[in-house]
Amino acid sequence: MAPASEWVTIAPDDLLVMDLAPDRENRARRVVIQLMPPPFSQPWIANIRTLARAHWWDGLAIVRAQDNYVVQWGDPDAEDAAKAKALPLLIPTDESEYVSPAGVAIGRDGQSRHVNFSAYTEAFDDFVSGWPLSAGHDETVWPVHCYGTVGVGRSLSPDAGSGAELYAVIGHAPRHLDRNIAVVGRVIEGIEHLSTLPRGTEALGFYKSPEERTPITSIVLGSEIADFHVYQYLSTEGETFARYAEARANRRDPFFIVPAGGADVCNIPVPVRRAQAG
Amino acid sequence: MAPASEWVTIAPDDLLVMDLAPDRENRARRVVIQLMPPPFSQPWIANIRTLARAHWWDGLAIVRAQDNYVVQWGDPDAEDAAKAKALPLLIPTDESEYVSPAGVAIGRDGQSRHVNFSAYTEAFDDFVSGWPLSAGHDETVWPVHCYGTVGVGRSLSPDAGSGAELYAVIGHAPRHLDRNIAVVGRVIEGIEHLSTLPRGTEALGFYKSPEERTPITSIVLGSEIADFHVYQYLSTEGETFARYAEARANRRDPFFIVPAGGADVCNIPVPVRRAQAG
Repeated sequence: MAPASEWVTIAPDDLLVMDLAPDRENRARRVVIQLMPPPFSQPWIANIRTLARAHWWDGLAIVRAQDNYVVQWGDPDAEDAAKAKALPLLIPTDESEYVSPAGVAIGRDGQSRHVNFSAYTEAFDDFVSGWPLSAGHDETVWPVHCYGTVGVGRSLSPDAGSGAELYAVIGHAPRHLDRNIAVVGRVIEGIEHLSTLPRGTEALGFYKSPEERTPITSIVLGSEIADFHVYQYLSTEGETFARYAEARANRRDPFFIVPAGGADVCNIPVPVRRAQAG
Repeated sequence: MAPASEWVTIAPDDLLVMDLAPDRENRARRVVIQLMPPPFSQPWIANIRTLARAHWWDGLAIVRAQDNYVVQWGDPDAEDAAKAKALPLLIPTDESEYVSPAGVAIGRDGQSRHVNFSAYTEAFDDFVSGWPLSAGHDETVWPVHCYGTVGVGRSLSPDAGSGAELYAVIGHAPRHLDRNIAVVGRVIEGIEHLSTLPRGTEALGFYKSPEERTPITSIVLGSEIADFHVYQYLSTEGETFARYAEARANRRDPFFIVPAGGADVCNIPVPVRRAQAG
């Protein structure tokens, strides 16, 4: 068990709470997302907070579910200028916004504890401040796509997307999206409400008819919900996380015959918990 | 497009066809699995063919769905000696059966085309005869766990499992299972019928009540179905696959800004198709 000092509380403004319409048994479906800390993707995250405070997503829908890839939500009419829902803010979409996804220098002297060399990116995967990152030889780092990662849907480059259309990864880590898309967060609770959605039958898993889409009841910031749970993640700089990561790489419980000797950064999910009451 | 000569027909006895009970809209749910070729896991695959020919699974159920991990099926009463369904054959479960999962030498002189070095296994990932494998420095190779991989459920080692309880991977590749479990195949069609199943709420995603389980109508070999589809996979030794794998590692379509420079073996799914009618 980790000492209390190794659990880091997530600020309520860093929580995005999505309530889908209840399922067929009338059970609630809530998905909780943690937004990324600076210096990553902050222009989009500012937009996302603005959209949540405006309740902009309320009444919109899950528009896409592609097996072993992503579930995506936003305005089903976004591509139709006559019907698209107006955004509550001016959206920067010029290419300069790509500074963040392309990797940023964060001054990591002495913090390095590489998990492994990643063949996908020819860089080192690592954890910094609670997040899986990849670190290039040029001292830049960038967030990586794992199961549960939330990113900003967009059209062809240089469109960067506004943050109004978001997706969550529900399959094997699509690491080819790293540095190509703004990663803005990760699902920390309720991902099964996304991963079990019926897959869309149109190209890329988009739903064919409006009836197939799951309505979004509301998306708000955690700070807007009275007495909301307090979420904490395990510090990735502490001793407990180091032991946990090592144990994931070399499984020693009686089930295993051959320990792997290593682990993919996406097979070392950062532990997140609801804090105990008082 | 690949020339016809690069498509390899899968023998009907290498196809396992699972029909689940129809869904709530009364739509059919069929999952097609390709069994692994020699020299891998053949004792279990022999058992699986025997079980399918005996229609042993018919009337049993999906017993487990764990998010970002596996869906598992078999006899819900397997652990209860008084109620367990009798197996139609003697099952070898002694430790010597682990020869295959531990890696086998297959004589690959001149066939080597390493995809990348895998930090998980400290070995090289590769493709041989249509399957993703990992190749150790000692000249042995073993099948790897990717999304859709089918393996043999078992208890603690040295129990090797019989093949009567099977699972399919529905999340990020659990590579720590490589060499610890007998990989027997992969889902080539209909995995969405498994990946969208409601997750079980007991430990490890097992279902709490019988009502939550999805019934299996039947599991048979492809050879038992009259006029069944002919399935083909793209040869992994041909020029087309080499170009495809390279394109997966370096995406050049207009969506991408930064090509990754590499790709996880599990992000290069081997193409499988239904053959065109003569």
